[in-house]
Amino acid sequence: MTKSSLKKSAETQVPSGLFDSNLEYPNFEFEVMHKDAKSGARVGKLKTPHGTIETPNYIFCGTKASIKNLSPTQMEEAQTDIILANTYHLMIQPGAELVEKMGGLHKFMNWNGPLLTDSGGFQVFSMGHGTCADEIKGRNTATKKESLLKITEEGAVFKSYYDGQKLMLNPETSMKLQRQLGADLIMQMDECTAYQVTRDYTAKSMEMSMRWGDRSLAAFEAMHDGSQGLYGIVQGGIYHDLRITSAEYVASRPFFGTAVGGCLGGSDDEMYGILEAIKPYNHPDRPIHFLGIGRIKDVFESVKYGIDTFDCVMPTRIARHGMALIKGAPNERINLVNARFKDDPEPLDVRMDIACSRDYSKAYIHHLLKAGEMLAYQIISQHNVAVINQLMREVRAAILEDSLDDLRQEWLCD
Amino acid sequence: MTKSSLKKSAETQVPSGLFDSNLEYPNFEFEVMHKDAKSGARVGKLKTPHGTIETPNYIFCGTKASIKNLSPTQMEEAQTDIILANTYHLMIQPGAELVEKMGGLHKFMNWNGPLLTDSGGFQVFSMGHGTCADEIKGRNTATKKESLLKITEEGAVFKSYYDGQKLMLNPETSMKLQRQLGADLIMQMDECTAYQVTRDYTAKSMEMSMRWGDRSLAAFEAMHDGSQGLYGIVQGGIYHDLRITSAEYVASRPFFGTAVGGCLGGSDDEMYGILEAIKPYNHPDRPIHFLGIGRIKDVFESVKYGIDTFDCVMPTRIARHGMALIKGAPNERINLVNARFKDDPEPLDVRMDIACSRDYSKAYIHHLLKAGEMLAYQIISQHNVAVINQLMREVRAAILEDSLDDLRQEWLCD
Repeated sequence: MTKSSLKKSAETQVPSGLFDSNLEYPNFEFEVMHKDAKSGARVGKLKTPHGTIETPNYIFCGTKASIKNLSPTQMEEAQTDIILANTYHLMIQPGAELVEKMGGLHKFMNWNGPLLTDSGGFQVFSMGHGTCADEIKGRNTATKKESLLKITEEGAVFKSYYDGQKLMLNPETSMKLQRQLGADLIMQMDECTAYQVTRDYTAKSMEMSMRWGDRSLAAFEAMHDGSQGLYGIVQGGIYHDLRITSAEYVASRPFFGTAVGGCLGGSDDEMYGILEAIKPYNHPDRPIHFLGIGRIKDVFESVKYGIDTFDCVMPTRIARHGMALIKGAPNERINLVNARFKDDPEPLDVRMDIACSRDYSKAYIHHLLKAGEMLAYQIISQHNVAVINQLMREVRAAILEDSLDDLRQEWLCD
Repeated sequence: MTKSSLKKSAETQVPSGLFDSNLEYPNFEFEVMHKDAKSGARVGKLKTPHGTIETPNYIFCGTKASIKNLSPTQMEEAQTDIILANTYHLMIQPGAELVEKMGGLHKFMNWNGPLLTDSGGFQVFSMGHGTCADEIKGRNTATKKESLLKITEEGAVFKSYYDGQKLMLNPETSMKLQRQLGADLIMQMDECTAYQVTRDYTAKSMEMSMRWGDRSLAAFEAMHDGSQGLYGIVQGGIYHDLRITSAEYVASRPFFGTAVGGCLGGSDDEMYGILEAIKPYNHPDRPIHFLGIGRIKDVFESVKYGIDTFDCVMPTRIARHGMALIKGAPNERINLVNARFKDDPEPLDVRMDIACSRDYSKAYIHHLLKAGEMLAYQIISQHNVAVINQLMREVRAAILEDSLDDLRQEWLCD
């Protein structure tokens, strides 16, 4: 697909002149080492002040400055390269100022590798109107607290779920908070629209996100000391022309990386359609992060559109429901609560070189789940993280060997 | 104190002839290496088929075949020598038969060191009438399910909290269950009396526990293959003369070890008074285990009465309330939920050579507790286990150097 084959919006265009500085990121690098001739997937190296990771890679969610049920040591045992934390949760508790006082997020949570924070915007908006997934799955969000009070050009005003305090999140405060937290990779402030909003709302919101992008860049530049790399975010909902304008905007500005966010539609096809639409417009020399997406099948599909990093709560969240990721299992996973594992003497996966996957029988983990023993969540969470890291290593190797489709067959039953 | 200075009960005496076999434990050994001249405390070696531990030592509680929030690897990192599991909980879920089918408790829970199980009796009785501690602390136990249905000479009948099934626990079933579980050190079946029962009830119960001891020995001998060592249990409540009869009974029978159980009164003085009363009557060449007791102050006091091993849920239970054991802290611990730790950059204890104690600030752990992050319980639990193991190493060294009182001053603020 070429640029010309996609219809651009006549209504929206990249604003010019709002931010024309030439930011540089001397302590960061992104290098594409290899591109799969067949699929277009790429293998790269992403250098940050806290280490270099190979891409494609997976960023595990340590929402409140902790990967749920796992210590940094256990994350390292599972061969994790990079994690993230959420600005929204941390600004509310314990506060970004406190984290800064304690030496920054790396020191605070005892993670010395590359670290990412988001802008805080996603949670502000999703807690206000429910997530895209809530909409698609028909989950009732009416009972959610009305935490989002107001969205204006200035920013978003919301109520803290912790103490009811009225808080403002805008490009300037988001940059300040993310600087206080001190992650390597940080995100511009953007608005995330809900699934049910009109095209008109989505267009206006995307335009505002572009202006917020420029304000983020300006605030970022004012405090820039080389320790952080800023990502711009492609918005535009399910409308390809809006997505393209947004991708052009991100590519036109001196962001270090590109992120794809917002509502991605109600089906896999719609989601991958968006990635396909923006693919020609993404900056070719920058790492591309896919915000909040990360089933195993998503990884196999998305790398073909040049996605370099993923993040999703899935690996640790499904662990808390007793579900373990298994290479080649139907639907990517098994449910250890299921009675069929009651007397299964086999471990989760002997192919894995880690105690959690190798040294406990499924019968034991089933028992722990039945008995409400927290150790179950620790074992399954670490296993799931290790499986995803194994997946990413194998995906990188397969891209180098142009054999991604074969690897997909090994991992997925579809 | 000599035997003659303590008054024996005229009413109770050790039954004779009920069990007169001469059981041997060729794969077990207990050797007293040194006895503190001043205090009477001793350092020994206790050999089991799964390894030899030095005593005094602490047996950590893995009630349902899992130390709460900690993996066997994390227990090893904390330099743990020995753990236990509870027969009562395991007979109910997943069932001792299943554990046996999965290769026994060591393999099931992936713990390759020495392991102890109790008889199951304590939980049957404490769930029936509340624990001694419930009585003393005035905790309301009226809302407890009436799980204990009947106690007779035959045994105890109770209802499973899991599925309401009617179950029998008696000396023969307890021995069978503990054989299926396959721990190294196992306990005779006994009755644990509540605090409020009369002297008459306590005497009759203690006499029955002696008969149950003989039945336990007979059932044990019938299945004896050298893999397990059986402990007799000294009962008799708060009545010194009953305790002495019971201690004489245990010493007179071919148990491998001596355990002190049952209701120990309403104060520390009453508890240590019981240990003092039975001290001359305990078999001098056998390891002595103190059932369910294990504050740091208890360790310092009890070793003087020849106690070799302790067990208590305290280290991991208080962790789940945010409390960390600290050498020299008032009341042995600090409460990390307390707001004074909000911005405390210091780790739990830099003197400890383990990540959990050294690599996280109190501010971070306070944040995790406030945020409801399970990692807090993992960090504090492992720290508490490591502290207790450090305590036991230091206690053993102090006994060897006859300097227990000095060490007590370092650990306790009293």
